[in-house]
Amino acid sequence: MEIAKLGEFGLIDRLTKDIAIKNASTVKGVGDDCAVLSYPDNQVLVTTDMLMEGVHFDLTYIDLKHLGYKSAMVNISDIFAMNGTPRQLTVSLAISKRFSVEDIEEFYSGLRLACDKWNVDVVGGDTTSSFTGMAISITCIGEAAKQDIVYRNGAKDTDLVCVSGDLGAAYMGLQLLEREKSVYYQQVEEARKKNDKRALEELSHFQPDFSGKEYLLQRQLQTEARGDIIQKLREAGIRPTAMMDISDGLSSELMHICKQSGVGCRIYEKNIPIDYQTAVMAEEMNMNVTTCAMNGGEDYELLFTVPIGDHEKIQQIDGVKLIGHITDAKFGQVLVTRDNQEFALKAQGWNPLS
Amino acid sequence: MEIAKLGEFGLIDRLTKDIAIKNASTVKGVGDDCAVLSYPDNQVLVTTDMLMEGVHFDLTYIDLKHLGYKSAMVNISDIFAMNGTPRQLTVSLAISKRFSVEDIEEFYSGLRLACDKWNVDVVGGDTTSSFTGMAISITCIGEAAKQDIVYRNGAKDTDLVCVSGDLGAAYMGLQLLEREKSVYYQQVEEARKKNDKRALEELSHFQPDFSGKEYLLQRQLQTEARGDIIQKLREAGIRPTAMMDISDGLSSELMHICKQSGVGCRIYEKNIPIDYQTAVMAEEMNMNVTTCAMNGGEDYELLFTVPIGDHEKIQQIDGVKLIGHITDAKFGQVLVTRDNQEFALKAQGWNPLS
Repeated sequence: MEIAKLGEFGLIDRLTKDIAIKNASTVKGVGDDCAVLSYPDNQVLVTTDMLMEGVHFDLTYIDLKHLGYKSAMVNISDIFAMNGTPRQLTVSLAISKRFSVEDIEEFYSGLRLACDKWNVDVVGGDTTSSFTGMAISITCIGEAAKQDIVYRNGAKDTDLVCVSGDLGAAYMGLQLLEREKSVYYQQVEEARKKNDKRALEELSHFQPDFSGKEYLLQRQLQTEARGDIIQKLREAGIRPTAMMDISDGLSSELMHICKQSGVGCRIYEKNIPIDYQTAVMAEEMNMNVTTCAMNGGEDYELLFTVPIGDHEKIQQIDGVKLIGHITDAKFGQVLVTRDNQEFALKAQGWNPLS
Repeated sequence: MEIAKLGEFGLIDRLTKDIAIKNASTVKGVGDDCAVLSYPDNQVLVTTDMLMEGVHFDLTYIDLKHLGYKSAMVNISDIFAMNGTPRQLTVSLAISKRFSVEDIEEFYSGLRLACDKWNVDVVGGDTTSSFTGMAISITCIGEAAKQDIVYRNGAKDTDLVCVSGDLGAAYMGLQLLEREKSVYYQQVEEARKKNDKRALEELSHFQPDFSGKEYLLQRQLQTEARGDIIQKLREAGIRPTAMMDISDGLSSELMHICKQSGVGCRIYEKNIPIDYQTAVMAEEMNMNVTTCAMNGGEDYELLFTVPIGDHEKIQQIDGVKLIGHITDAKFGQVLVTRDNQEFALKAQGWNPLS
């Protein structure tokens, strides 16, 4: 169905009509000038992210349902990174004429799947048109008791540096998708030159073979916010001293924590968690897997520091890896390689403005 | 300066380095995964708006400073429309390579001027690139005591319908700008056809003559949120029964209030406040001025209803006009013209998706 047929209010009605409010803190959701929330006991966490077509996502790789899911998850991840609980989300979408009502419903179904997973209420937003690419802006709101909030600036000398999950896979997933896309366009180009209609027909049903690489795709296309790790840390009685989520790459995020905490760090290459598929793919593409893990970005794993006294507790948590420790600022930010060489960390993370 | 030279974090540092927090509710502003706010006593209001280049604004009309100001004001306006006090704002910007650091500083200077006017803290955001047009997404957060919040759904039979300021001027301002733009391009086209280099040189310094129409331009380019009216209503001890801001046009907003409140309304054409310049411009352009006022949009005035018992109080408030009254739903939504004819209201407001 064409979106113009429904109009802005008709579309919003259709997208939001069966939203059931799940949180007591949501007093009023969609339908007025503002959403109304109530947080008498806890502090309120607010984060926002903008995703632009062609810069942050490519609709030849990712379908709208996954895109909706990922857009919500990357914002929910920021709430977890403060040791908070996500509660509400607003979503603004700008779309061009090429999208149908069903397309937008697909996007919303992915967004709401992510919200349902973490009990987040969709409380507002804006749906408008774009003359060019698609633009997505999401704001997520959460809560935490004042004493539970973990900032980036609390890391102390001797603290242990930990990460959840494994790193570099989302980046390798993107490399894989880009490689397949360029192979595809090359083949189309060749078939056109030869005017090979049969080849062109076959290419129109082209399905790249991703077997053995499913995990890389999943990490790129189906981002998960690590609320499970937050839960495990709570159960173990561990409160991180500093924390953030890894969106731009481990190096870049470590530098943020060190800068804001006024400390240095010492990270061991051999301890950086890397999945088997990531390592295989890096070799296939002739890339250094540690560089991919340090600078790849889009992992949305948690990077955090804990007091050295929590050493035993942290080692018992499944899915968390100890990768180094915090030092005095004068020692700088150091990566110790497998062969015991030392390098200063450099933030080569993804920079949308370079 | 090129933005790539600073990078994302350098640009954010530059834009946010001298932001001083003004509100006690702002615990932590820019610089972590989330902003942290504290609202122990009041409810929290959240609103968000997305503005797309070519759809919501045209950079040949509006400079970046005014655009920043307007982007903030239209969101602040939504907080006032709930009878709240705006406190925090996040801003996400997607920009193409053609913008310099100084351009973005211009945008921010306008945004912060609007925030300073209403004591709003800029607490976060996102700055990224766009392959095509500029995209702006703003979320504004405010507060209000639970009993003070005014929704759209509280209008009752016999309530008086009021609007602040005057209507239709912002729309006429847009018509004026579009007319001058098309005249300009016509002249350029003609000069090119004749290869008239002198005319082309003169046109490169083209300054349209807007004398006598300054108010229309101001209303289009320098949007003001009507916090002053909220203040006056409070001082007069008036609590509206329903309220919203007029962004899409009076007709459209009246229909929202009537639908959500389950009532009808009777609006008198002769009472609709219209500025002299709006009337002159409508005549010049051969447009019906009432239609412009009813459907023009972008006025950002307040539309609200008050109990009939507040009749005298409301008449003493400067800048508020009584335009009609609320009726039982069965009488529908009616516009009574100057010659006593009755028409059903139609929402012909601006629809970004049609």
